[in-house]
Amino acid sequence: MFSKILIANRGEIALRVLRACKELGIQTVAVHSTADADAMHVRLADESVCIGPPAARDSYLNIPQLLAACEITGADAVHPGYGFLSENSRFAEILEAHDIAFIGPTAEHIRIMGDKIAAKQTAMELGIPVVPGSDGAVKPTDDAHAIAREIGYPVLVKAAAGGGGRGMKVALTEKDLDTALSTARSEAKAAFGDDALYMEKYLGKPRHIEIQVLGDGRGNAIHLGERDCSLQRRHQKVLEEAPSPALNAAQRKEIGEIVANAMRKLKYRGVGTIEFLYEDGKFYFIEMNTRLQVEHPVTEMITGIDLVNEQIRIASGAELTLRQEDVLFEGHAIECRINAENPRTFAPSPGQITYYHPPGGLGVRVDSGVYQGYRIPPHYDSLIGKLIVHGRNRVECMMRLRRCLDEFVVDGIESTIPLFRDLVDNQDIANGMYDIHWLEKYLAAKSDD
Amino acid sequence: MFSKILIANRGEIALRVLRACKELGIQTVAVHSTADADAMHVRLADESVCIGPPAARDSYLNIPQLLAACEITGADAVHPGYGFLSENSRFAEILEAHDIAFIGPTAEHIRIMGDKIAAKQTAMELGIPVVPGSDGAVKPTDDAHAIAREIGYPVLVKAAAGGGGRGMKVALTEKDLDTALSTARSEAKAAFGDDALYMEKYLGKPRHIEIQVLGDGRGNAIHLGERDCSLQRRHQKVLEEAPSPALNAAQRKEIGEIVANAMRKLKYRGVGTIEFLYEDGKFYFIEMNTRLQVEHPVTEMITGIDLVNEQIRIASGAELTLRQEDVLFEGHAIECRINAENPRTFAPSPGQITYYHPPGGLGVRVDSGVYQGYRIPPHYDSLIGKLIVHGRNRVECMMRLRRCLDEFVVDGIESTIPLFRDLVDNQDIANGMYDIHWLEKYLAAKSDD
Repeated sequence: MFSKILIANRGEIALRVLRACKELGIQTVAVHSTADADAMHVRLADESVCIGPPAARDSYLNIPQLLAACEITGADAVHPGYGFLSENSRFAEILEAHDIAFIGPTAEHIRIMGDKIAAKQTAMELGIPVVPGSDGAVKPTDDAHAIAREIGYPVLVKAAAGGGGRGMKVALTEKDLDTALSTARSEAKAAFGDDALYMEKYLGKPRHIEIQVLGDGRGNAIHLGERDCSLQRRHQKVLEEAPSPALNAAQRKEIGEIVANAMRKLKYRGVGTIEFLYEDGKFYFIEMNTRLQVEHPVTEMITGIDLVNEQIRIASGAELTLRQEDVLFEGHAIECRINAENPRTFAPSPGQITYYHPPGGLGVRVDSGVYQGYRIPPHYDSLIGKLIVHGRNRVECMMRLRRCLDEFVVDGIESTIPLFRDLVDNQDIANGMYDIHWLEKYLAAKSDD
Repeated sequence: MFSKILIANRGEIALRVLRACKELGIQTVAVHSTADADAMHVRLADESVCIGPPAARDSYLNIPQLLAACEITGADAVHPGYGFLSENSRFAEILEAHDIAFIGPTAEHIRIMGDKIAAKQTAMELGIPVVPGSDGAVKPTDDAHAIAREIGYPVLVKAAAGGGGRGMKVALTEKDLDTALSTARSEAKAAFGDDALYMEKYLGKPRHIEIQVLGDGRGNAIHLGERDCSLQRRHQKVLEEAPSPALNAAQRKEIGEIVANAMRKLKYRGVGTIEFLYEDGKFYFIEMNTRLQVEHPVTEMITGIDLVNEQIRIASGAELTLRQEDVLFEGHAIECRINAENPRTFAPSPGQITYYHPPGGLGVRVDSGVYQGYRIPPHYDSLIGKLIVHGRNRVECMMRLRRCLDEFVVDGIESTIPLFRDLVDNQDIANGMYDIHWLEKYLAAKSDD
């Protein structure tokens, strides 16, 4: 096992990793920019090293400084958290070259999954379902109708050179296809000077459902069920839950096994998340994140498995001891990402927290790096903390979430707690009836009021 | 279901009950003495009523005032918490007479279990194992040796009129019995003017193990496993855990079924705890508490069952929907009662909390009614809050507890957090090797240092 881990991150995730290290009896090194000298993870770490000025590129993204911090402190492993260098294959390689373990997958797997085209290709080879589409551009000699029938309606026609929605048309049924093709072709020609078109399955109201996996790099891998992260604003997840209100046990098992088998074939090491769009009972691969996710606690709450503990043990060379049949899903969990932002405009609200009181009691978890008197710096993301609530079922979980939001006090700055108070009272949310566009529409309607 | 519950208590348990009410969508009424006007449960309740001056007999024990508070607010049920009026059968009767539900068992069951002799008699009738002993005083014509052999050595000989250890002798084996009897008899005669003697099984190093039960008053009842509460100081529990390090699954099942069957026969309603001394694989009934216990969260953590929620549902007339086979025990939980006391002398340390920061993260629960700036009044118990930690197994739980104790900040007053930091590092505690005398001896040895 490692004797000392350097945590190359900040905020709540640095504290999350530090807690796992302490519970494993491993010494910890915190790194921090000059803006983060008073951060909680710095206070609680065994050692800390200042690695540069506030700008992330000069501190948390500064590989030479991080290497120097490892050397000074004698750390034998680095946990990258999420964001920053967590999916930087070069960082993983440089650490390995210096005989320091990178707590994550191999540099090669990071690289493959970081490249959209290689990732989709690999997913297909591994038997993971992807969005069906034409194999490259539709040539004039191709039977576009046959291709569309194979993909299945509705079909999206889009300019190969496209972007920003121009040259994009939806054919809901076969009779719309010729018009869609000709309109898209002329728009594409006009906008990009290139009339090449692709076709792919059109998803009108998809959910974002992702599968958590855990592998040991030796061909052992399991899945830990799904998370539903469909509530998003500008592609940022806002609230996540597990299990998904849209899946049943058979669907969970089927997609979970597909993904776990894929990870066995890949000999994937560590934690990872395979993200899908989901519509009408079908899954479509988006991408794979080769790191811990912000929303990993919802999976921990329903499985009782400490993902960071497993990640560290596996990185140290341990075999995966959990078998798929050991993973039991109990109850329901919801996470709210509470940000230092105006709950209507989402304008960042950095500054000093003058009063802080988190909720407590049964089924309640708060992962946060803040404390009363802490000053949220303006240089980084605006996450105050994550409120994660567990209940025996979704109704109990929602009721518990509501009372926790009522108890949670963050004064001195604005926070998104009022947004979540509105969301728990919303009928669509109560019914679990939402897709990836729901929150944007809801916010737009509210701002019109 | 009730529409409004009055919570006839204070501190963390008032908040615990309030949280359960909120999660059930029930309105809450807080009551408070003049010393508790700023308490958290008062701040979070829908309504609050001041019921008198600080002295408990004038406020929290003042039945007419509590009745008046029910009348003013229209509460249709009262939750008594623990302590105060929670085991007062008269209070339960008076409420019923006023058509207000008492959230607890029948007045009759409270009365029986509140009387030591009636409780032991009832336990025996229900098939619950009690401490074996002579049937009343040992008469000169009795064969004391035959009685002692039936009880089983070691045997305690004690003055019928006794107390304070005088007239008490232990016969470890048969050859000690005559000396023990004659010495005890002359000591008893000298001390109490009465030489009548009892004999009972002597327990030298018992553990305190209690079984949590839940019944609906219609003959349905289940057990929720045991709690080991052997770590005590002056008969006050200090740290509780579940499962007990001393029991195996078969023993748990056996004693659990005995107790659950007894509660079925009794038609017991609500939550209850049957307390035992446990030694050498055998259980000996001490008493039954007909209320929620301080340490109920450790059971909630390993079963996922919200005991207060169940208690309220059952009191409203609902049937017990949980069956014994639905109760699964997952992992390990430990609770530390953190008091506002000097951690060596245990002198109370009331006063203002100038800084408060509870630990967070996976498997961590804090049940506390305090907040930063709160002033702990000198009039009541010194409980700051309960830290409850869950892990997949006892080792993980202990490691997590250690890191939580390192994170927990309570400034401005003294607390027993340092005592728990010492305890988690102790080898006997790590091994689960302790009995009801262990903590007293440990503290005595420490104060000699």
